Amino acid sequence: MPRQITSFSNVTVKRVRALAQKKHRAAEGLFMAEGLRICAEALDAGHAPRILIFAEGDRHELTARLIAATEDAGGEALEVHRDILAKITGKDNPQGVVGVFALLDTALARLDRGAADIWIVCQALKDPGNLGTILRTADAVGAGGVILLDHSCDPFSVEAVRASMGALFTVPVAQAQGAAFFEWLRAGPAMLVGTSLKASADYQAMSYDAPTFIFMGNEQSGLPDDYEAACDALVKMPMLGKADSLNVAVSCAVMAYEVLNQQRRRG
Amino acid sequence: MPRQITSFSNVTVKRVRALAQKKHRAAEGLFMAEGLRICAEALDAGHAPRILIFAEGDRHELTARLIAATEDAGGEALEVHRDILAKITGKDNPQGVVGVFALLDTALARLDRGAADIWIVCQALKDPGNLGTILRTADAVGAGGVILLDHSCDPFSVEAVRASMGALFTVPVAQAQGAAFFEWLRAGPAMLVGTSLKASADYQAMSYDAPTFIFMGNEQSGLPDDYEAACDALVKMPMLGKADSLNVAVSCAVMAYEVLNQQRRRG
Repeated sequence: MPRQITSFSNVTVKRVRALAQKKHRAAEGLFMAEGLRICAEALDAGHAPRILIFAEGDRHELTARLIAATEDAGGEALEVHRDILAKITGKDNPQGVVGVFALLDTALARLDRGAADIWIVCQALKDPGNLGTILRTADAVGAGGVILLDHSCDPFSVEAVRASMGALFTVPVAQAQGAAFFEWLRAGPAMLVGTSLKASADYQAMSYDAPTFIFMGNEQSGLPDDYEAACDALVKMPMLGKADSLNVAVSCAVMAYEVLNQQRRRG
Repeated sequence: MPRQITSFSNVTVKRVRALAQKKHRAAEGLFMAEGLRICAEALDAGHAPRILIFAEGDRHELTARLIAATEDAGGEALEVHRDILAKITGKDNPQGVVGVFALLDTALARLDRGAADIWIVCQALKDPGNLGTILRTADAVGAGGVILLDHSCDPFSVEAVRASMGALFTVPVAQAQGAAFFEWLRAGPAMLVGTSLKASADYQAMSYDAPTFIFMGNEQSGLPDDYEAACDALVKMPMLGKADSLNVAVSCAVMAYEVLNQQRRRG
């Protein structure tokens, strides 16, 4: 049975609220996902909430399923006034459901490169909205996972989880430093393809071997020179306008669909 | 000569700060763009700032060019302490330059469909970040413009301008209600192509005639049924994952590059 909580100073309410900050996520080993749809996606992917907080009076069938799954897994379901959800999420008009989940394992060693023909690698990606969008794209193209190198943003931030629309739970994410990644990459088959303004090859003129690792650089500065040098191919998309770059999540998607389309043609 | 302003209560500082709100943009006929790079893009595209605010001590060559252009056009350049820039932009760590520009003409009648083979149409687009990203893509694929239908977000919001990275100044933007748009569209050659989950045609199997109007729906609900019915073609991208949709700016870019790639192959 869910407990009803009416106090802002409730210990669990305070704990969950603190998960907006990375240091508390790390200390607790937990992160927060807002919204019924994302929490339901998590459950479908096999992740039951450790804590589920929902607005009083919510009788949605999916909410009931989430409450049951949370309690079955030994977690806690709390029914609260919307004011408390507003406080937890820092929003005037909060989602009616907040789920708290155990941090996912982001060890590089966990990835099986044989599991997919497309992978996405991001170096020093800063914007959690871009990361969430890239996770959605990774899900759509059937990518094996997204690998975050160096000081990239936190995939467990509220913004990244939200922008991923639940793809964080369905697409494996790994975090690594560049050196460890290159060592892992070269221990097996891989075509590492960077997008670069300096490239001369058109992205459609290149033939992509599986597994293809699409390598995206930082939003401002792109890939470092030595990372570009480590690529098997550098390609560029046509840019007919005044500007010299696309949004990184857009550029990643255009590349990923090109790789997927080549694979579809090969059948 | 730029004036030095040291007071938070300076009238111009207050006016510029108010431009964060749409009602003040409408009342003043002005909007704000943050950052040296975006302001320089604006100038290159023929738009001199009406007001330029820059951090004291900024001796960047581009800033000097912006100051000169602002004053040549009869505008005002103000040198201020960073605290005032922080106040204007609402950011702890503000950009060093803020430009204020006259609102651009967004009349549909201003567009010349013969000017380009790709156009982007967005219906009830809500997120200014998505709009800015779509403007960048439109610039990159050489689109003739972006047409915003119904209650879409404001292209002159700080967030949209920022996400556009200056493309707002290089890509024509029009705003219209659906009925007026369809009347304009059908008064000349056009292939209107919607992306839809209900479509059976693969986006790569379709041949796109110029000018192609790529039609994107709202982030949550996609295109309304009657708008889909008004399309010349409905297409879908392969989605191999658990989710059934991509970010709207991503989906728009994948479509736009497919149309561009077909045009490139035709030569």
